[in-house]
Amino acid sequence: MEDDIINLIRAELGISGPFEDAESVPLGGTKLMVTTDMLSEGDDFPQGMPPHAIGWVSVAANLSDLAAVGAAPLGLVMAWGFPRPEDERIREIAKGMKECASFHKTRILGGDVNRLDRLVISGTAFGSAGNPLRRGSARAGDRILVSGKLGASSAAYITYWEKREPDGRIMERFHRPLIKLGLMHELAGKGLVNAAIDDSDGLSPSIHHICRESRAGAVLEYEKIPLFEGIEKYTNAKYPSALDLANIGNDYEVFMTVAEENLDEVLKMGRRHKAELYDIGRITEKGVLIERGGKREAFPRTGFSHF
Amino acid sequence: MEDDIINLIRAELGISGPFEDAESVPLGGTKLMVTTDMLSEGDDFPQGMPPHAIGWVSVAANLSDLAAVGAAPLGLVMAWGFPRPEDERIREIAKGMKECASFHKTRILGGDVNRLDRLVISGTAFGSAGNPLRRGSARAGDRILVSGKLGASSAAYITYWEKREPDGRIMERFHRPLIKLGLMHELAGKGLVNAAIDDSDGLSPSIHHICRESRAGAVLEYEKIPLFEGIEKYTNAKYPSALDLANIGNDYEVFMTVAEENLDEVLKMGRRHKAELYDIGRITEKGVLIERGGKREAFPRTGFSHF
Repeated sequence: MEDDIINLIRAELGISGPFEDAESVPLGGTKLMVTTDMLSEGDDFPQGMPPHAIGWVSVAANLSDLAAVGAAPLGLVMAWGFPRPEDERIREIAKGMKECASFHKTRILGGDVNRLDRLVISGTAFGSAGNPLRRGSARAGDRILVSGKLGASSAAYITYWEKREPDGRIMERFHRPLIKLGLMHELAGKGLVNAAIDDSDGLSPSIHHICRESRAGAVLEYEKIPLFEGIEKYTNAKYPSALDLANIGNDYEVFMTVAEENLDEVLKMGRRHKAELYDIGRITEKGVLIERGGKREAFPRTGFSHF
Repeated sequence: MEDDIINLIRAELGISGPFEDAESVPLGGTKLMVTTDMLSEGDDFPQGMPPHAIGWVSVAANLSDLAAVGAAPLGLVMAWGFPRPEDERIREIAKGMKECASFHKTRILGGDVNRLDRLVISGTAFGSAGNPLRRGSARAGDRILVSGKLGASSAAYITYWEKREPDGRIMERFHRPLIKLGLMHELAGKGLVNAAIDDSDGLSPSIHHICRESRAGAVLEYEKIPLFEGIEKYTNAKYPSALDLANIGNDYEVFMTVAEENLDEVLKMGRRHKAELYDIGRITEKGVLIERGGKREAFPRTGFSHF
């Protein structure tokens, strides 16, 4: 549904290239990479989410798209809409934004404010990349890696939505995601990754995106998918398994495909950047499948839609 | 009020430089200029505004900030929030966006969609400028020019708000503003302008901004201020004069200050770009004044605030 809307808009705007995490414009001998992400109270920031975390996540969501294309960040601009200006809350959100930007060695350059019924933060991050990573260049035989554990954000959402007992480690992961910018920029610079996508759409939609854009397939190995510890306690009727939680997304990790011969070097680089890289399957000629207990079955495209 | 919020946010983010229409980042031998503008149904897009105009204006508002710094546009990304996806309306908004971008020789590269209670469009435009124009470099003795007539947008807002009889020329001006990108880029390139600001805040706040950032003053000549024909019919109790309408802003014109010795060349360049440039006063040492019927009085800072 969300994809249909995006496709309708892209068609009308005459955007014909493949759908990427960030847009690319040649500038001064390098490529300027730009990405925008609109987040809002309710859907993206659940009721009760601390303002500092709102600020942090609104920046992290945009940096995550830069990481997925292997860009080095140049800065962000943040447009805010909110109902009443409550000084203390605004200050905390701004503080969260600033700390997230500083942590990732970048900064917020400016922005805009507007009055809206509820909090909306629309950020734009830009960076540079000599050779940006794309979604559509996975090759049959590539290993599929993910840059960290999945499902904590979904478990945190459910904690808020259903007023469950919070798990400190899960909430920390949701409130303060760390983006693999340095690792991805180095991997892209060395040409070690064939295709990449950030996981804002969730495991299943992301793998389907890569396969569709690359005209390829994939086999995931269920036992190797790194599910965040303790998330199974947060499943519910709509998302009955830990894997369903991983399919909602927003863990701000990157899925990447890597040729067999580069695998060792990529894993070594991951260790140097203190990133946990998990090998979860491989790219095939066609079909998106999952292998579980020796049995292989279709891995359907299911995830979260704003609409 | 809006300025207080912006200052609070900027302080918390550690943004210490002067407040400009677009932010500047050195990149590949030039300066990347970035600006973002969040517009929403109700405040910015009045009830009944045609979707095509909503799209056009959402792009034009961002390009206007690039014009004010003399940047050549490289592209835009647009983040949308809306309640229910109504295909026909979305298509028309996208069409308006595309036509505005194409008219101004640029394009929309991508964006984001989100579900919100009402339509919000947050655009980000980026461009390049060798020597960006700034607000804070006006010099005493400079002439103050404006790139077109003022007040039509405010008259159009009042037409919508109060369901007045629409004036075709006023509505056309509001629904399809044309941005002086080419002229401003050339003026900036040739170093012919000392300071500039776009008029999104309105005549009075814009002149006050320039004076404050430049530690200078100004005297405007009331008789020379180009008020859009017919707007006096749209005054009301809150905005009782045509000048009050000009102070609301959103006409997407640029105010600029020009040294006496460059005035002829600037006016000539204006004619070549088919832009109407009006000389409305001059920069002084201090105080913001207006001269009317031979009498000089204070020109207070009054305008529109979203809050």
